Formats: sequence, C-alpha cells, structure tokens
Amino acid sequence: MREVAVIGVGMNRWGELWEKSHRAIWTEAALEAVEDAGVDRVDAVYVGCMSGGLFVGQEHLGAMLAGELAMGPIPGVRVESACASGGLAFRQAYIAVASGAHDVVLASGVEKMTDVDGAAATYALSTAADQEYEGYHGVTFPGLYAMMARVHMHRYGTTRRQLADVAVKNHAHGTMNPLAQYRDPVTPEQVMESVLVADPLRVLDCSPITDGAAAVVLAPVELARRLARAPVVRVAASAHATDTIALADREDLAWLGSTARAAEQAYAQAGVGPSQLSFAEVHDCFTIAEVMVVEALGLADRGKGGEAASSGYTRLGGRVPVNASGGLKSKGHPVGATGVAQVREAVVQLRGQAGERQVRGARWGLTQNMGGTGASSVVHIFQGEGRR
Amino acid sequence: MREVAVIGVGMNRWGELWEKSHRAIWTEAALEAVEDAGVDRVDAVYVGCMSGGLFVGQEHLGAMLAGELAMGPIPGVRVESACASGGLAFRQAYIAVASGAHDVVLASGVEKMTDVDGAAATYALSTAADQEYEGYHGVTFPGLYAMMARVHMHRYGTTRRQLADVAVKNHAHGTMNPLAQYRDPVTPEQVMESVLVADPLRVLDCSPITDGAAAVVLAPVELARRLARAPVVRVAASAHATDTIALADREDLAWLGSTARAAEQAYAQAGVGPSQLSFAEVHDCFTIAEVMVVEALGLADRGKGGEAASSGYTRLGGRVPVNASGGLKSKGHPVGATGVAQVREAVVQLRGQAGERQVRGARWGLTQNMGGTGASSVVHIFQGEGRR
Repeated sequence: MREVAVIGVGMNRWGELWEKSHRAIWTEAALEAVEDAGVDRVDAVYVGCMSGGLFVGQEHLGAMLAGELAMGPIPGVRVESACASGGLAFRQAYIAVASGAHDVVLASGVEKMTDVDGAAATYALSTAADQEYEGYHGVTFPGLYAMMARVHMHRYGTTRRQLADVAVKNHAHGTMNPLAQYRDPVTPEQVMESVLVADPLRVLDCSPITDGAAAVVLAPVELARRLARAPVVRVAASAHATDTIALADREDLAWLGSTARAAEQAYAQAGVGPSQLSFAEVHDCFTIAEVMVVEALGLADRGKGGEAASSGYTRLGGRVPVNASGGLKSKGHPVGATGVAQVREAVVQLRGQAGERQVRGARWGLTQNMGGTGASSVVHIFQGEGRR
Repeated sequence: MREVAVIGVGMNRWGELWEKSHRAIWTEAALEAVEDAGVDRVDAVYVGCMSGGLFVGQEHLGAMLAGELAMGPIPGVRVESACASGGLAFRQAYIAVASGAHDVVLASGVEKMTDVDGAAATYALSTAADQEYEGYHGVTFPGLYAMMARVHMHRYGTTRRQLADVAVKNHAHGTMNPLAQYRDPVTPEQVMESVLVADPLRVLDCSPITDGAAAVVLAPVELARRLARAPVVRVAASAHATDTIALADREDLAWLGSTARAAEQAYAQAGVGPSQLSFAEVHDCFTIAEVMVVEALGLADRGKGGEAASSGYTRLGGRVPVNASGGLKSKGHPVGATGVAQVREAVVQLRGQAGERQVRGARWGLTQNMGGTGASSVVHIFQGEGRR
C-alpha cells in the first residue's frame, strides 16, 4: 500500500444553517479543501452522510456532490456508518489512494439535520441503533448512553461532576474555535442543573443537532511532498472495527470494544502508543462517551476516564489534550461530517495552524469516530512532518 | 494493486418476502456465499443498500450485518449510490482487496422494499433523483425514463415494439432462473397492452419492487487459486463514473455518458473490447435503459440498441447474450442488491454453473449497474479461468 497524506482541509461554520441547502453546505467545505490543497483536479469524491434519505429526502449523494465539484465525470461514493460515516468515508478514500486506484481524492462529510422537526430527527438518529430490538421498543440514544453511564458510575465510581467536567472542558476549548456551533463556556453547575434528558444525562451532556460539512484532500505522500504548500501530514494508521449493534448483546456495557480494537490495530500500524500522542479528537456525542473512549484508547486506565477530564490531563495544556476543537459537544455534531472534521482538526493542529487552541509541539494526533453506541469505530493516526 | 478474484457467491429467491426481515434476507445470501467460498474467515464486509432509512428504518447496516456474520469485530461498510449501491459496494470491496488492506472480503447488497406502501416506495426511490430540481416538482423515475425514451424514439426511430422485445427477451431468460421474482414469459402484445405508467412506458417495461439480497466473496487471485473449489473468476476491470444527477443538466438525454465512460475505462483495464465479451448483465430498470446501456457499452451502434434486442443479437444463443439472468425486469430489482446479483450471475456463468441459461463457452463477462437516470455507473469485467 502507498503512503498517504492529507494535503488540504475545509470546513464551514457549523450551526443551524437555515439559509443554506444540503448541497450548498457541502460545496463550501469541499471547495475550501480543494483550494487549500492547491490542486486543479480531483480523481474521486467520498462523502460520509448518515441519512440523506430521512433528513433531506436525498440519497445518491456521491453522484450528486461529485457533480457539484464540476471536475468531470469522476467517481462519487457515499459511505454510511451512522455517526461514524465521516470517519469511514475518510478511511475508504485512504484505501483508494493507498491502493493506487486514485491519486487525488476528496474525503468529505455532510449532514443537514435541522430541516426536520425534533421528533423526526430523533427518529432518524435512532436508525443507527438496532431498530428491531432497540428502536421499536422506544429507546433513543440518550437513553442508551444513560444506561452505559449508569453501569460506569456503579462499577467505577465515576461521578456526575466528572461527566460535567467533560462538557466544561470541551466548551472551554470550543470558545477558541471560530467554526464551532456553541462558543460559550459552561460551568459544572450549569451542566449539572441543565434539563434532564435521560438520567443521569442532562441536555448539556449531549452533543447538539447541527448542520455542517467538512472536507479534506488526500494524495500519495510523494505527491504531497512535491505540492507541499503546507507542512505534510501523513496518515500513519487507519483502522475500523465493529461491535454488536444492540447494547443488550454486549458482554460489557461499560467498555467500547470496537474502539479498543481499532485503536490497538492503529497503534500497531503507526508504531506509536497512546503515550506518544500529542492530542486526540474523539467522539464525545455524550459526556460519558468521551469518558469511555479515553479508556478504550489507552489514554486513561479502565474506569479512570472521568478523572482524566477532571484532573486536567486531557485539557489544552494538559498531558494529552482531547477535543481541542471543542469536540462534538461544542463544535456541533452534523453526524456525517463529524469524522471528517476530526481529521481536519488533526491536520490543522499538526500544521501548527490552530491559533489560540494550538497544541504545542504537536507531532502525532489521533482521531476516533464512532457510530451508534460504539457498534462501529474508526481510528486514524496522523503524523506531522513539519516544515521541510 | 493486487489481482482479485471472486471465490464464492450467494443469493436467495427474490420476491415479496413478507415473512423475512431485512437482516434475515441478507444473512441467507451472505452465509451461502461464505459456504460457497469454503473459507472460515471474512476480514471485512461491504454492504450496498440504497435506503435502509426510508424502506425499513435501519441505517448503520455495515456494523449490524457484520455482526450477523458472527466472525468477530470485523469492519462493516455500507455503500450507497442509489440503484448502483450493490455494484459500488463490490467495487469498494475490490479496491480493499487490491490495496492489501484486507484479504477475504464479503461484498453484498440488500433491499427490503415491500415493508412500505407503494407511495412510500416511490418516494424512497425518488431520492435517487435530484430532489430540489426533479423530485420536488413531482417527477418520478418512470417519468424520467419516459422522457429519455421519447428522445430516443424521436431521434433514432426506436419503436414501441423494440422496447417490448427487451422485456420479452429478459422474461424468457428469467423463466430459466429459479431465483427470479417473475418466471413467466411475456409476449410483445402483453407488454404493449399492459397498463400505461408514463407514456411510452407501460408496467411491463418497468422492473418491479423486490425484496432480496446477494453476496459474493473476494480474495487475492493467488489465494483463490490455492483455495479453488470452483473455477477461478478474476476481476479483470473495475470502473465507476458519474454524470449530472438531474436529467435537465445533460447535454444529451439519449446517451448514458457515465456508462460509456466507465466502460471505456474498464475495456482499457481488461485489455478486451465489446466484441470479445461472452455476455453482459446490464441495468434494465426500464426497457429503454437496456436499449441505451447496450449502446453505451459498444455492444450496438448509437441508436441501434432497440434492434439489438429485436434481432436476437442479445438473446441467449445470440452473439452476446444480455441479461441471461432475466435482468432486473424478470429477476427483480431490490435496488441495493442488484449490482451484486449481476456479479453473482457473471461468476455462475464463467464457472459454467448456469444450467439451462448457460452461455456456451463463456470466458469474458461484463456487469453494468447504474443509479438514478445514469448519474452513476459501475462497470466490471470478469474473466473465467476455467478448471485448472
């Protein structure tokens, strides 16, 4: 397999983008990535989108969005893996470049979630769970993650305050991200007194409903080094693993097996371990999710994910900043776009272009994107080569 | 890129499968393919499905169906490109094996379309068109293909009877396929007197609404030759191209540019031309579609696609049988599964296992799967190596 680099990134300001269509949102991010890469051609487009059908009545996004790019009759592929659609679209684009099938590939993600009402959005999101054994019985994602949180709190003594500290940290980071949906800091008290959604999770434990897109351009490392308008960022590892889609089928509700498995493979591929990471962008769809992901990635011992946020270990300036971008919590969570935005943040950090939220001396970055309650996880590791 | 072969195939009897769930339908085909391949492991699963969200309220199919296989936490990837979802899932699986990312990969497709009523199915299918510029104005797929047919008839003199001859041919083939949804022959008169759907297209010009699945197992050619329980079938070419999603944006309504472009690339990769093909399985979602596809593949001159069916050129026993399986018309069209079932038919033919509908001396076979009105086309060429 050929070595692959990310040579361009694009993302728009996320939020409730009433005035923009699904395709317009995507096109903004895509054109920015192409311009950032400085290329005059794209050989193929990959698009992560969870439910174009249920959110905007539009499937066939690969063909439609490849057409928007107006670079000829190039392949356009839509990849779906619920909230991991973006990360998985990036991985398929990576495989396509590594294989030699294509050279310059745009990997992108988009979701427009606010064109439907709250109940319809909740239904659309519930299709990421097992519809026959979970959805049809009325449980939605806050409920599923609440059960995971209850087990984690019971078994490891994780506290309500530790969950709040995840939200506080990520909102603090998000104040420094001009593209984030919510740029307001929150206090532990605000989180713990916010509206109850599914006990113990409150509304400020939950990532929001968001419209947005992100895009990156991939190319073989050799081509990237020749083009190099910015420091080259190499894809050092790409891994994907699954777990049971239904929570009831898991051996352990408090352990994200798919993330642990994908991380193990990614560390082996990259030849680095968690202790060498400069930062990580992880899937904090709920505060408890970040707690569990940090453990599965080996950034904290099992049961110590809550402490990692409270102690400052995963805060900007701490040992390994987690979600310097603001994470899903503050940056927003347009489900199909999230995984690609994580890659964008990793690239911006490894180029040293992250401004106020820059992780000092960033050299190795990890992204972790997951679908459902962790039925699918996609992990990538990136290495910044610095200016040559 | 490594050379890739198809080493196992599976498909269930298609039709209105009221008594089976979406996942059960998929699992039948998948397990048959794994058993046919004679492997005890699968490294990754690709699933083509057009709209799990709108048809059955289930997205996240990659993770869910990888779980059904019970072969560990392997990657599961859902690929969507409207009615070309199956062909594109096969192509992504091919790239994954060719790249070296995975060795033994299951490529599959599934759609359960009869759980919703006719209006909901029509809506779900319409999301393959441009929703903003086509769907919202009320045009559905029979209407779009009817416009293409009108242009073709006007410009080239294609006749109503020639369209009927496509249906007659494919239904005749389908009588010999025990897995086909409709195994009844039809006469030209029956087609031309059937209920009008969108002038000039009548109900017997249209492929049906179908539940079904198909699956195949891919592996590097070297591994295939070692395992070989059946004659090895090599993937000689894989190509994918797009066109505008909206028909109104096309330069020529009577020409399938994406199919022509993908075919051109595929012929170059395989080192064969249309005259060397033993057979083709093509996307006859409507009779006019086969007429236009046959031209775009170079099996007939431009404007002569109708004549190709009427003259017997594309009939079993003719120069290059097209849709010996019965095609979408008779075999059925569970949209996400269709492209994979085409590959299954190619493999069965190249192994010499097609029974009554066997193409004599089959050596090179082509599959063509498309989405929408040809906004995306996926073309593969297969070579049978015979018994070694």
